[in-house]
Amino acid sequence: MSAYQELTRRFARLSAIDNALGILHWDQETTMPEGASETRGEALATLSVLRHELLVDPRIGDWLDEAGSADDLDDWQRANVREMRRLWVHATAVPADLVEASSKAVSRCEIAWRAARRDNDFPGLLPLLEEVLRLQRETARAKAERLGVSPYDALLDYYEPGGRSERIDAIFEDLAGFLPDFIETALSHQAARPPIEPLSGPFPVEIQREIGIRFMAAAGFDFNRGRLDVSVHPFCGGAEDDVRITTRYDESDFTSALMGVLHETGHALYEQGRPAGWKGQPVGAARGMSLHESQSLIIEMQACRSRAFLEWAAPILREAFRGEGPAWSADNLYRHYTRVERGFIRVDADEATYPAHVILRYRLEKALIQGEMELADLPAAWNGLMEELLGVRPPTDTLGCLQDIHWPGGAWGYFPTYTLGAMTAAQLFDAACRADGDVLPGLSRGDFQPLTGWLREHIHSQGSRWSSEELLIRATGRPLDAEVFKHHLRTRYLDD
Amino acid sequence: MSAYQELTRRFARLSAIDNALGILHWDQETTMPEGASETRGEALATLSVLRHELLVDPRIGDWLDEAGSADDLDDWQRANVREMRRLWVHATAVPADLVEASSKAVSRCEIAWRAARRDNDFPGLLPLLEEVLRLQRETARAKAERLGVSPYDALLDYYEPGGRSERIDAIFEDLAGFLPDFIETALSHQAARPPIEPLSGPFPVEIQREIGIRFMAAAGFDFNRGRLDVSVHPFCGGAEDDVRITTRYDESDFTSALMGVLHETGHALYEQGRPAGWKGQPVGAARGMSLHESQSLIIEMQACRSRAFLEWAAPILREAFRGEGPAWSADNLYRHYTRVERGFIRVDADEATYPAHVILRYRLEKALIQGEMELADLPAAWNGLMEELLGVRPPTDTLGCLQDIHWPGGAWGYFPTYTLGAMTAAQLFDAACRADGDVLPGLSRGDFQPLTGWLREHIHSQGSRWSSEELLIRATGRPLDAEVFKHHLRTRYLDD
Repeated sequence: MSAYQELTRRFARLSAIDNALGILHWDQETTMPEGASETRGEALATLSVLRHELLVDPRIGDWLDEAGSADDLDDWQRANVREMRRLWVHATAVPADLVEASSKAVSRCEIAWRAARRDNDFPGLLPLLEEVLRLQRETARAKAERLGVSPYDALLDYYEPGGRSERIDAIFEDLAGFLPDFIETALSHQAARPPIEPLSGPFPVEIQREIGIRFMAAAGFDFNRGRLDVSVHPFCGGAEDDVRITTRYDESDFTSALMGVLHETGHALYEQGRPAGWKGQPVGAARGMSLHESQSLIIEMQACRSRAFLEWAAPILREAFRGEGPAWSADNLYRHYTRVERGFIRVDADEATYPAHVILRYRLEKALIQGEMELADLPAAWNGLMEELLGVRPPTDTLGCLQDIHWPGGAWGYFPTYTLGAMTAAQLFDAACRADGDVLPGLSRGDFQPLTGWLREHIHSQGSRWSSEELLIRATGRPLDAEVFKHHLRTRYLDD
Repeated sequence: MSAYQELTRRFARLSAIDNALGILHWDQETTMPEGASETRGEALATLSVLRHELLVDPRIGDWLDEAGSADDLDDWQRANVREMRRLWVHATAVPADLVEASSKAVSRCEIAWRAARRDNDFPGLLPLLEEVLRLQRETARAKAERLGVSPYDALLDYYEPGGRSERIDAIFEDLAGFLPDFIETALSHQAARPPIEPLSGPFPVEIQREIGIRFMAAAGFDFNRGRLDVSVHPFCGGAEDDVRITTRYDESDFTSALMGVLHETGHALYEQGRPAGWKGQPVGAARGMSLHESQSLIIEMQACRSRAFLEWAAPILREAFRGEGPAWSADNLYRHYTRVERGFIRVDADEATYPAHVILRYRLEKALIQGEMELADLPAAWNGLMEELLGVRPPTDTLGCLQDIHWPGGAWGYFPTYTLGAMTAAQLFDAACRADGDVLPGLSRGDFQPLTGWLREHIHSQGSRWSSEELLIRATGRPLDAEVFKHHLRTRYLDD
């Protein structure tokens, strides 16, 4: 066997373990009886260790060197080797004892975080979170050395391949300058209009589920290779050819579960549309978290919160829920789905205020990783930035720096991908509309094909063949440009 | 670390993989979308290979030798080492290329079998089944050499640790002499009574499910560590602390799904009652397939088809299904659940005729493995034996030698455990009733505690500490005794 063949075989094996892990995680969140949590934890940990051992095998380094200098590989194969090396470098950059210490610190901190958030007890969490941060800094330094980038960028690179904070700084500075005035103006604009009519339920779960499935099908979700289920925290998971999304239903409000389903459907379309010939291989995987988030947001924010789509959806919803009166007009639904509000909680934030939440976290985690700030100063810094960017000051840490699981959970360097994704979504949607005049008209008759056909060709089917930036340039003609996103926000929230 | 510690760590890892495989198998049968079957097959195969590699690791042999001569182990630990060695011997006795060839031959043959059974085409299946048999004979010889037993016993030993055909021959000869006359008499006895009243539906799935859950709970199933779901072929699977049983519902007949649920509940109680201190270790596992089948049959056949239990169950069923008239009397239900009928199909057979189906298969597979018979002669031999043992002759191979998946699926040596299990169940139930006079009265008020408490103490909590025979002697005072089973059959089908 050639070195390249050895590599594809090894990575197919890793992918098979990932597929097993994906289903076991899904099961844990949707199906597993409570008493199984310890046994399940051990099964997941064992598979993760086996996976890691297969990935840090020293022979992979030799195979990568050999395959890297082979002259009989085509473009896709060369990109595959590049992606294999990326995964291998991230896995081997950190010594095994640091991986283990970090994983244990995270487990302890996550448990403590749940109690600390409930009890508004940041000081109680501090020592455990400091331990997580200490090990993250160490991990960041180890990876930085191998990757030749700054410590923060080394963590970022894991979620956002090739992502660099110098570039994000510039984009986020631009947005941070734009947002406060924009939010103020959008709120005045909203206040000047008649009040939004409330939609009153109850909205039976079974009907919410049926509509979710109908809309998923309209968007192109392949139910032969996926499912919709229920979990406390909605996600898109599962395995290759088995993409499982979840939602949670509230019988007094259908709007949130429905848009949540469409958000996860966007992630799922990306997974289901990956290049079929590269199953189980790194080059066939999705291109990083910003791109992934862009695919959920292009479906949720760009397509499904558009007037065009809601004109199609409104009568369907009205009929299904036996609604009556002006609350069920497309215009009122649109106003529900584009309502702007200053709030403390990121996951409840609307499209207009969400970037402020992200920019805040990005600045703070970068300073913390780079050692320019200490955790003891986090609550004050958080609250100050909230006031600066969003004009509100959290009354408690529960509503402030304790709200997210990311830092206690060891996901440092992840936050910026949310807003990079939102911006990428705006830019891709803009390009799709320019390329095909039927994208918006299609949505107004429940036809996603013009949009998803374009996405499949330009994004999904490309897997990890290109860098994020090259992919975006190939699809839209230019690198990430904050102006498109700002234009989208202005059009939707100020002109309409 | 001591050799014993190394071993417990390694086997805990194997158990974690088994737990993962158990959930993935369950998911495949109950939940997985169709398009995922190939990906799932690869995930299962990869985990199985990783498991096998961890088990045939040559260091295990050294550790076993060292632990075997350690003098600081207690009884349970020594039994644990004995069981580890058993698993290791079975895994290492067969060369890797034979394992692989066998697994591939089975995959091909199983697919062909589905078509051959549908089309009544034994000649079409013959070449593929001959290949499976050839590799099974080779496997049997390889294991026989390591175990120092006959080839057939070497296969049997995998499912029934310590099981030997010499002993089974004697027991089955005895039964084979008893059954034809007994069945004849039972049928006359049945014919002399008034006809059984039909139970007419429909019986809504939701109600069948609710009753199943109620009866499972009554029998002591722990829903905090298990589930009930739906699959085409009912089974008991899942993982440690996560025991999942399945059934299939028929809205025109509730009796079959309900008794199926109780059968799987018996398996589940065994799994849920294994010694908690030995989780993930071989000595904590259930003691072979006969014992496992005895636990399903003690709940289904001994307890739940008893007059006592059905007196409690009848009014519950009548109320739930809004039944009326004499069909819903406890006596009529009992007659439904103890009806005897000569049939061609094993899985549809009743308690009285089932052993004839098993004895037939046992004789044939033993002759085939030992090379005393060839597959071309199977249909004639099958039909002749059916006539001899059961008095009916299958009109087609579909209703004859093509009906079971076991042989195409590579499970040779498994069949006798069904009837050994039925006999063991009778003997255990008899002993439980002698030990506690409240076992039967308990069932007549829906209280399984006297029975299951005895089983937990004498069977479930013992894991694999003893051999099957020693376990039975400790629980009932004697080795397997066909007289108890025959007495049970006579009492239920002739005296009543």
